[in-house]
Amino acid sequence: MSVYLKDIPLEVATKRLFASLEEYGLTGVKGLETIPLNELASGRVLAEGIWAKISSPHYHSSAMDGFAVLANDTRDALPSRPLKLVVGEKAIYVDTGDPLPKNTNAVIPIENVEPIPQDEKSELDVRHPREILIRASVTPWSHIRLLGEDIVATQLVIPAGQQLRPFDLGAIAACGHSTINVIRKPVVAIIPTGDELVDIGEEPKAGDIIEYNSMMIAAQVNSWGGIAKRYPIVKDNPDCLREAVIHAVSHSDLILLNAGSSAGADDYSSQVVESLGQLLVHGVAVRPGHPVIIGIVHVNYKGQERHVPIIGVPGYPVSAALTCELFVEPLIKMWSGNQNKNIEEIEAELTHKVTSPSGDDDMMRVALGKIGNRLMAAPLNRGAGVITSLVRADGISMIPRGIQGMEAGEKIRVQLYRSLAELDKTLFITGSHDLTLDVLAEYLAEKSHRLVTANVGSLGGLLALSKGEAHGSGSHLLDPDTGIYNDSYIRQYLAGHSVNVMSWVGRIQGLLVQKGNPKKIMTLKDLIRPDVEFANRQRGAGTRVLLDYQLKLFGILSTNIRGYQNEEYTHLGVAAAVISGRADCGLGITAAATALDLDFVPLFTETYELVIPAEIFHSAFFEPVIQAANNPEFHSRIQKLPGYDTSKMGEFRSVN
Amino acid sequence: MSVYLKDIPLEVATKRLFASLEEYGLTGVKGLETIPLNELASGRVLAEGIWAKISSPHYHSSAMDGFAVLANDTRDALPSRPLKLVVGEKAIYVDTGDPLPKNTNAVIPIENVEPIPQDEKSELDVRHPREILIRASVTPWSHIRLLGEDIVATQLVIPAGQQLRPFDLGAIAACGHSTINVIRKPVVAIIPTGDELVDIGEEPKAGDIIEYNSMMIAAQVNSWGGIAKRYPIVKDNPDCLREAVIHAVSHSDLILLNAGSSAGADDYSSQVVESLGQLLVHGVAVRPGHPVIIGIVHVNYKGQERHVPIIGVPGYPVSAALTCELFVEPLIKMWSGNQNKNIEEIEAELTHKVTSPSGDDDMMRVALGKIGNRLMAAPLNRGAGVITSLVRADGISMIPRGIQGMEAGEKIRVQLYRSLAELDKTLFITGSHDLTLDVLAEYLAEKSHRLVTANVGSLGGLLALSKGEAHGSGSHLLDPDTGIYNDSYIRQYLAGHSVNVMSWVGRIQGLLVQKGNPKKIMTLKDLIRPDVEFANRQRGAGTRVLLDYQLKLFGILSTNIRGYQNEEYTHLGVAAAVISGRADCGLGITAAATALDLDFVPLFTETYELVIPAEIFHSAFFEPVIQAANNPEFHSRIQKLPGYDTSKMGEFRSVN
Repeated sequence: MSVYLKDIPLEVATKRLFASLEEYGLTGVKGLETIPLNELASGRVLAEGIWAKISSPHYHSSAMDGFAVLANDTRDALPSRPLKLVVGEKAIYVDTGDPLPKNTNAVIPIENVEPIPQDEKSELDVRHPREILIRASVTPWSHIRLLGEDIVATQLVIPAGQQLRPFDLGAIAACGHSTINVIRKPVVAIIPTGDELVDIGEEPKAGDIIEYNSMMIAAQVNSWGGIAKRYPIVKDNPDCLREAVIHAVSHSDLILLNAGSSAGADDYSSQVVESLGQLLVHGVAVRPGHPVIIGIVHVNYKGQERHVPIIGVPGYPVSAALTCELFVEPLIKMWSGNQNKNIEEIEAELTHKVTSPSGDDDMMRVALGKIGNRLMAAPLNRGAGVITSLVRADGISMIPRGIQGMEAGEKIRVQLYRSLAELDKTLFITGSHDLTLDVLAEYLAEKSHRLVTANVGSLGGLLALSKGEAHGSGSHLLDPDTGIYNDSYIRQYLAGHSVNVMSWVGRIQGLLVQKGNPKKIMTLKDLIRPDVEFANRQRGAGTRVLLDYQLKLFGILSTNIRGYQNEEYTHLGVAAAVISGRADCGLGITAAATALDLDFVPLFTETYELVIPAEIFHSAFFEPVIQAANNPEFHSRIQKLPGYDTSKMGEFRSVN
Repeated sequence: MSVYLKDIPLEVATKRLFASLEEYGLTGVKGLETIPLNELASGRVLAEGIWAKISSPHYHSSAMDGFAVLANDTRDALPSRPLKLVVGEKAIYVDTGDPLPKNTNAVIPIENVEPIPQDEKSELDVRHPREILIRASVTPWSHIRLLGEDIVATQLVIPAGQQLRPFDLGAIAACGHSTINVIRKPVVAIIPTGDELVDIGEEPKAGDIIEYNSMMIAAQVNSWGGIAKRYPIVKDNPDCLREAVIHAVSHSDLILLNAGSSAGADDYSSQVVESLGQLLVHGVAVRPGHPVIIGIVHVNYKGQERHVPIIGVPGYPVSAALTCELFVEPLIKMWSGNQNKNIEEIEAELTHKVTSPSGDDDMMRVALGKIGNRLMAAPLNRGAGVITSLVRADGISMIPRGIQGMEAGEKIRVQLYRSLAELDKTLFITGSHDLTLDVLAEYLAEKSHRLVTANVGSLGGLLALSKGEAHGSGSHLLDPDTGIYNDSYIRQYLAGHSVNVMSWVGRIQGLLVQKGNPKKIMTLKDLIRPDVEFANRQRGAGTRVLLDYQLKLFGILSTNIRGYQNEEYTHLGVAAAVISGRADCGLGITAAATALDLDFVPLFTETYELVIPAEIFHSAFFEPVIQAANNPEFHSRIQKLPGYDTSKMGEFRSVN
C-alpha cells in the first residue's frame, strides 16, 4: 500500500475521486429512462423538458353552466326590454366544460336568463326551456375558456432537471403526454463483510456484531435518490469478496464495501480494490472515519469494459454514516440530478469545551436547545461506535484541522438535521439522570412535543440553569445540614434567579449487586471490605452527594473504598459496571437494577425534583410537563417501573 | 340541499368535519402495524417507543487491535525498563471489536508493544509473537468499549411518534429489535367521476377532459404519508357512483370524489353522500374551490358498521389541489402521525394590484423573484383551471375575506413552495415574450439555474426594471424616428439607470393566417377588408409598436381594422385566436405560426434584445446567460426554431 494514499485531507480525496470519474466518463447525470406518467413519477427528475403536445384547454369551452349564443344576437337586450332567444336556434344549453357549439362566441350564465317552459302546463326544465329571455347584451368570448388559455401547444411547460411535484404531473398530462423521460436512478451495491457480522434478528454472541450498517446506508442511498441493493454478508475471504465485487460491478453504478477497512487483521478490501482496479485513497483525515478506501474497479461484463467507483466504508456506524454523507451523497445527487440541498446552517453556542485532533477535520454532532433567544449546542459523544449520537443529533458541526479545540461559549456553525421550528418546541432538561424522564419523553412525543435530556449531574444542571443553558434540571441534592433536598443548593447556585421546584418522584436508592448477591453486600459498611470493588457516580451527581453524606454518618472513609474513584455518569452505567463484573456493587436506583436483572439492596428513599426557572415554568412551553405531572395515566406509567413513588408529583414551591 | 350548508367560512367547515370525526372516533393516529426492520422502514412513524432489549455494545469489546492484559500485570513497565509479557499467558491478541478475554481488563494497542518472534529464524507475525515488551503501564479499562457504552438495555432509544431516519433504523437494530410497530398509513380512495373524463394517453376530443386530477391527488396523498388508491373513472350515474363509494368505504379511511361537485348538471356527489350518510358541508367560501362537499358515510361491511369521511373535490385542477391542501392534508397528517410542517413563510412585495371577492378567503399563488434584497411576488393567473399556475407557483398567499384587493407594492405573507436558497439563484426576466426564452430556461435548468419569465410586454418590462422589480427584460421597441430598437425607450424610461443591452435574436414578424391562407391575406392593407377579423397584441408590446409604425407608413387607420381592439398577451395567444377561428390573422413571429401549424406571411425582420441593469449584467448571477449566448450548441438549439437569426447573439452595448 503506497504511503501517499494515507490520511489525506478531505478535499484532496474528493478531488482524486472526481478526477478518476472524469477520466472514465462517470460524471454528470445517468442516462434517461422512459416511465409511464402516474403518481409514482412524483419525485423523479426530468431528463428532458416537457414541451406541450396539445394545448390546454384543447378546445374553446364554456366556463359556466348556461346558454351559448352569438354575441351579436344579444345586442338589443335591455333591462327594460328583454330579448327573447329560441333555444336550439339562437341559444344552446351548455354545461361547464362543454365545447362551444358552432356559430356561437359567448356564454350567458344560467342565472342571467329567464327560461320559458316548453308549454304552460309542463314543469320547467331549466336546461331545456323553449325560449330564454335576457335583459343585457354580452360581449364576444365572455364566459368562455379559450383554447390554449393555460398551455399553448409547443411551449415549454416544465424544464429538464426539475424534480416532479404532484401538480407537475397534472400539467404534463394536460399537455398531452402519457410517458416521461426521467433520469435513471443510480444503483448502489452495499456489501457488508466480516466474520463477526450477524444478521438483524439473530441472537448475537459475545464478539458478534449485528450487521445493520448496510440497512442504514441503504436508507441513506434511497433518500438521496439512488436505488440501494444490499448484498448478503460476505465472510473475510478475499476470493468471496472479489466474487461479490465482480458481480456488483456488472449490476451497479457504485459499490460500497462496509467494514474490513480498518488496519485490523480482516482487511481485504484494499487488496480486492487493487486487484481489480486502482486504489485512489486509503485514509482520509476526517474524524470519525479515517480508514476510508476509495478506488475504481474495471471488469469486463458481456464484452464491455465497465468502470465502477468503489468506496470502502469504515465499520463503526458513526464513521459509516459520515463517510456516506461525505462521499456517497454527492455522487448520488450528481448522478440522479437531485438538487435538494435543504440543509440549513445556523450559529450556536457550545455548552462544553471540546478538544479535537489538530490533524483532522473533526465532524462533531450536537444536540441543540433553544433557551430564550440563545441556541445552545451540546456536543454528543464522539465515539465512532456510538450510534445514539446519530439518533440524538440535531445537527453537525466541523472543527477544521489545525484547531485543537474550542471553549464553552464559543460560536460554532451547525448544519441542521431538524428544522428550527422543531427546535422551538424542544424542551431541554439537563441535570441528574432519571429513567422517568425517558417515560416523560415518550409521553410528550405522543403529544407532539420533544424532550431532550443531557445528563450532567444535579449540580451541573443548576450551573447550566444559572448560565441560561437549559429549560430545567433534574435534581436530588441533599443538604447534609437540613435534610432538605435542593433548596439550599438552588439558593447558592441560582442566587437572584426566581425558580420553581416541582416534585417529581420519590425513589429508593440502594446497592446494585450481582444476581444472588454472592458477596453478601448488605450495608455501606461492606464497601470497605478488601474483596469488594465499588462503582461510584461522578462528582456533583445527587447520588454521589447522598453517598458522601451517608459515609460521613457511618464514619466511613472514602479512601478505604476500592473503586471509589471509578466514576460512572448514569445509574445504568453503574448497573452495567456491576453486571459486567467490573465492579461488585454501586449505589443506584431500583429501576437500574431491574433493567439489567441485578439484585438490589434498598437503603434510603430520596427526593428527585425538577428545577425550573419561573419564567419557563409559567410559559405555555412547560405546560405539557405540568399536565403530565397531573395526569393519573402518566402516574400509572411510572408506577410500572419499580421503586418509584409519584404521590407528590406535580406539587411545586418557589425558591428565591 | 339545505341552504345552511352553502359557502360557509373555511374554519366553520373544518370544525364541522372534525366534530363529526370526533363523534365516530376517527381522530388521532390510525392503529399500529408491525413491519420488519429494513431500509424500507425509513420515513415510517413509530407507534410505540423503542426500548432497548439488549445493550450496545452487548459485551466488553476491544476498541483497538492489540493485546488484552490485566492492568495490574503492567504496573512495573517503565520506558527505561521494559516489561516482558508472554503471549497466551499474560497477553492475548485481540482485533478491534473482539470480546475481552477472561481475566483481562485493558488493551495495549499494537503500536505500543515490541513483539518478539516465536524463534529467531522465523519471520515475525505481529499477531502471534512469543512475547511482547511494553514500556508503560496501562490503567484498567483503557482501550475498551464497555458493555452498554452506547445503549443500556431497557433505556428509551427512540420515542413513539418519531419519523424514522436512516440511523434511527441502525440504533433500533443495535438494541436488539428486528421488527417495529409503526403507525398504519391511512388509505385514501380517489374516485374520478364524469362522462367527459378520458384516461391519460387517450386522444381527447372536443369536450373531453383528460383525467389527471386523481393522479395529482394520489401523489399529494402519498407525499403526506397516506396510501392513495385510484379508482377507474365512474360515469355520471348515481348507481355506479354509489357502488364505487360503498366499495371504497370498506377498503379505505377517506374517500375523495373528484368532479361532479359543481352546481352543474352532473352533480350526483352530494346525493350519494346524503343517501349513504350525512352531508356536513356543501360549499366553502374559499377561492378557488367553492363547491367543496364534506360528509361522512356509514356502511355495514362484514357485519360491522364503518364510518368514513368523504370529500367532494371540485373538478378544476387548481381548486382540486387547494381543496386537498386545506382538508385532506391535515387529516392524513393527523392519522399518520406525520408532523412535517416545513412550510416556511416570508414577506414579499406585490408586483401588481390584485382584486379579490370580499366574501371569500382568496388563495393566490405567486411567482417570486429576489431582486437585490427585495422579494417580489408576481400574482399568477388565478383561474381555477390554470394548472400552470400550480407549476409556476413559488408560494401561496391568502387574501382574507373582507378585503377586496391589494395594491402593487403592498406587503403580503407568502408560504413558500421553494426554498429561499432556490429563489436566490432564480433569474427573473420580464418584458416581451419570446419562445427562445423557453429554450434558455431549459438550458439554464440543465446547469442548475432557474429562469422565471413574466410576459408584460416590452414597455412593461422597462417599467419593471425602473422599479427594480426584475433582473432583466426582453425588448423589441422600435423607435419610429431613428429605426433603432430600444435605446431611445431605455433613455426615456430608465433615465439615470446604467443599463447593458445584449443582442439576442433577429426574428421575422409577419401575419399568422389559417392553413392554406383561405382569405388570401398578403399585406397589411388586407387588414381593412370587411371580411378580415384581426387579433392584435396588447398596448406596449413591441409587436404592437411595430404594427402601429407600419400602419402609419402605409397610411392605414387602425379604426378601420376589425378586431384591432382584441388584445392578446403573447404571440401564441394570437396564434391560438387564429387557429380557433376567432380571428383570421394576427401579427406575430414564425415560431408561433409553426407551433400551431398555421401559415405565415413574412413581412419584416425585427431585433429582440435583453435589457439588463449594469450591476446585474456584471454579476456572477447573470454569467450563465452570457455563457449561453456565446455557446454554439445553444445557438443551434435556437436555430431549430424557424425564423430566428442568432448571428448577433451575445453582442452588447451600454446605454445611459
